[in-house]
Amino acid sequence: MSSTDLMVDFPEWALATPLSQLAHTAYSLGPSPLLAEATEAETGPLVLAGVLLSLITVYFAAKLGGEICARINLPAVLGELVGGVIVGVSALHLIVFPEGAADPSNSVIMGLIQATSNLQPDALAAVFSGESEVISVLAELGVIILLFEIGLESDLKELIRVGPQAVSVAVVGVVVPFVAGTAGLILLFGVPTIPAIFAGAALTATSIGITAKVLAEMQKLTSKEGQIIIGAAVLDDVLGIIVLAVVASLAKTGEIQILNVVTLIVSAATFLVGAILIGRLLNPFFVGLVDNMQTRGQLILTSLVFAFVLSYIAAAIQLEAILGAFAAGLVLAETSKRKELEEQISPIADMLVPVFFVSVGARTDISVLNPLEPANRPGLIIASFLVVVALIGKVVAGFAIFGQPGINRLAVGVGMVPRGEVGLVFAGVGAASGVLSESLDAAIIVMVIFTTFLAPPLLRLVFDRQSPPESPLEAIPSSPESVEPSQSS
Amino acid sequence: MSSTDLMVDFPEWALATPLSQLAHTAYSLGPSPLLAEATEAETGPLVLAGVLLSLITVYFAAKLGGEICARINLPAVLGELVGGVIVGVSALHLIVFPEGAADPSNSVIMGLIQATSNLQPDALAAVFSGESEVISVLAELGVIILLFEIGLESDLKELIRVGPQAVSVAVVGVVVPFVAGTAGLILLFGVPTIPAIFAGAALTATSIGITAKVLAEMQKLTSKEGQIIIGAAVLDDVLGIIVLAVVASLAKTGEIQILNVVTLIVSAATFLVGAILIGRLLNPFFVGLVDNMQTRGQLILTSLVFAFVLSYIAAAIQLEAILGAFAAGLVLAETSKRKELEEQISPIADMLVPVFFVSVGARTDISVLNPLEPANRPGLIIASFLVVVALIGKVVAGFAIFGQPGINRLAVGVGMVPRGEVGLVFAGVGAASGVLSESLDAAIIVMVIFTTFLAPPLLRLVFDRQSPPESPLEAIPSSPESVEPSQSS
Repeated sequence: MSSTDLMVDFPEWALATPLSQLAHTAYSLGPSPLLAEATEAETGPLVLAGVLLSLITVYFAAKLGGEICARINLPAVLGELVGGVIVGVSALHLIVFPEGAADPSNSVIMGLIQATSNLQPDALAAVFSGESEVISVLAELGVIILLFEIGLESDLKELIRVGPQAVSVAVVGVVVPFVAGTAGLILLFGVPTIPAIFAGAALTATSIGITAKVLAEMQKLTSKEGQIIIGAAVLDDVLGIIVLAVVASLAKTGEIQILNVVTLIVSAATFLVGAILIGRLLNPFFVGLVDNMQTRGQLILTSLVFAFVLSYIAAAIQLEAILGAFAAGLVLAETSKRKELEEQISPIADMLVPVFFVSVGARTDISVLNPLEPANRPGLIIASFLVVVALIGKVVAGFAIFGQPGINRLAVGVGMVPRGEVGLVFAGVGAASGVLSESLDAAIIVMVIFTTFLAPPLLRLVFDRQSPPESPLEAIPSSPESVEPSQSS
Repeated sequence: MSSTDLMVDFPEWALATPLSQLAHTAYSLGPSPLLAEATEAETGPLVLAGVLLSLITVYFAAKLGGEICARINLPAVLGELVGGVIVGVSALHLIVFPEGAADPSNSVIMGLIQATSNLQPDALAAVFSGESEVISVLAELGVIILLFEIGLESDLKELIRVGPQAVSVAVVGVVVPFVAGTAGLILLFGVPTIPAIFAGAALTATSIGITAKVLAEMQKLTSKEGQIIIGAAVLDDVLGIIVLAVVASLAKTGEIQILNVVTLIVSAATFLVGAILIGRLLNPFFVGLVDNMQTRGQLILTSLVFAFVLSYIAAAIQLEAILGAFAAGLVLAETSKRKELEEQISPIADMLVPVFFVSVGARTDISVLNPLEPANRPGLIIASFLVVVALIGKVVAGFAIFGQPGINRLAVGVGMVPRGEVGLVFAGVGAASGVLSESLDAAIIVMVIFTTFLAPPLLRLVFDRQSPPESPLEAIPSSPESVEPSQSS
């Protein structure tokens, strides 16, 4: 067989086609990740460039917003949220995520990348997708680190001591908004039963991140009120996940799958109790391991491995990763390494936590708030009802505290108000499953925006009113300066 | 018009098709990122789970490898690289990247995610792609933070003082391996001119990250030898980029585009000098800004914004992001905030830098080293030649230092040996453009593996031989304990 015979087997179109086009044909045969992979050498550095520009924007927005808020005596985290709104999908379009109808042309940063690189549209879309994925995960790592830090600053004994109060606040704070919201939607607005139950359920779960950050900024985390709020918010998160499972199965099949709900409750309880008990048993081993290591970063990396393992387990059993991080923080707070670890986790939190809060703001589309748009009006009317129920339902829960004379019940209730990302998950699942009408879905989003943005200033107001900020901390002596260091730290 | 008329306009297939299938049809019309977006709600938490598992693996491998190396008196970073090889594509397949032919089924972590989630194959591929993108960017942020830290620990005045020596080391260290490598490949192995030039060029650029990390671990960063190595490695990096541009254009068009090369040289020089001059002018403004901020993280976030801006500019003008980060560190080292900043950047470096070194190890496919595989043998023979040239070429460069009696010239030369990721970029570009034959490409990869893995122990050996580790630092008094804190830091 001569070499000419071999040539004949080679299809003519292949010889006439330029290499780049051949490559393109090969890529388009495979599923989407093959495309991302094929262009990785080309797009990799651009993803990094996009991430750098995004982080610069995030830090700039967080610090500008935070500093302005600090100067007008509002919580800095509110400034980070508002800064996020300004750089996000509602205004400047610097930090946008490829959700809904967004494509690279909506992102100013992608426009800049495109202007300096001459990418093909689909390569640019791959860069946009990669950059958004990285910023999303950094935000999630940010809230994991935040909850780890909150756990580290908390006191397990104090949490157990205020346990009964936290349980009553959590249960009342779930039942009252759920019942009042569902009943009101059916009776006042004529909403059918299942959508009403779904929207009522969206009113239940407190967003622990925002409240915890405000408390830390005010150095109220270790106060009795602070520990009740944290304990109740953690329970609330678990209750919220259970409510979501119940409601989603109700919406889907019209009935409640008791077995799933029981499994979820048992696994949540087993996880939280088990993580803390086993963690405490392992504490001497942890300290010994860290003390015996000789290379740099021994404490912080061992702690992060512990926190990430618990976060992963929590996520894998359908709980939230942040619950695992909080449990890890609580456990490590009981070791002799607590203070050192607080100091080392602090710069990491400084770097990652703003990504979370700015992302929350950036994802918030405040155009649903515009009353001049007729399509928004039905949603806004229902929304104002939901906001009132959401506020009153949690404030009532604060007054469910028993046997604690002199406690600031109003502050506890207000601390439970922000709904944040948990409410948005309900809105997202509801819209995707078709249970929620468009106006009801928008109403839930408006409720989340209001409770999230109102809670920080309200919380500062009610804490200031009853206990002046210069009063000494009530509970355990902790190290508040590591939560909110002075400017010369 | 009755509602029945409207119904007629609605296509029948739409009514008969379930919603999920309709959605799927809609997605498949768009380019790949639409698919990723469509499954985002489903895959988002799984990407986080994959990242958490990957980080747990990275930290475990880094610490286990590092601790073992520390105990047998080898640099910890060598342990991180070897740990990476063990968890990477060569052995355990825990940390793998979707390069070449890898798909999710090659990743043990993706197998675990699949086992716990019942994902569709293309959704799993999207999770794999997202997780890899995040780990890649975290690794790149790690080396950016490392070079920022190295810049912060360096002394600009000392760097300028040793400038002439650094220039001569850099130039000799680029010219000797390039000429010897190219000539040897042509004369000894009969390689055609252009591939030989390409492979010779791959021998030029030092990997600054590995050398800097070993120097920091040995507390030799601020020694005169250390500063010459750092200065020469930075220049080397710039020279390497210029050589790559020249060689790539030569390989592509057969001629050198003088204008491009001049642009690159001018922009590199302008950037490095400009960043340092403008940065120094802005230093009082930087300190004033940080002192006037009232919210948490003011120093670290302001510094990161500065470092990321310079990194982005360096990347945008076709230099490397790490050069910008190094310049930012050098500039901020001159402010009164240096010590405080070193303390705060340290935990962030502890968290991110191991991701870089473990990733480098994990991406290294050591199967090309197996001499039992006949296909590897031609590559291995050429590789042994390249390794010898790579070692000798840089050691010779160390002896190019003039007018510095008593300096450890051997240590400087050995410090320039690791080629790391820069060599791999040459191998990648060469293979992609078809210039390099398979065996020559493999030979470059083997050269990179050997120089990278040999340099850390060699460097410790030559430094120990001439100056015992307990000798005081020679140059500026710095804070070595922040580079390699003792276990009770």
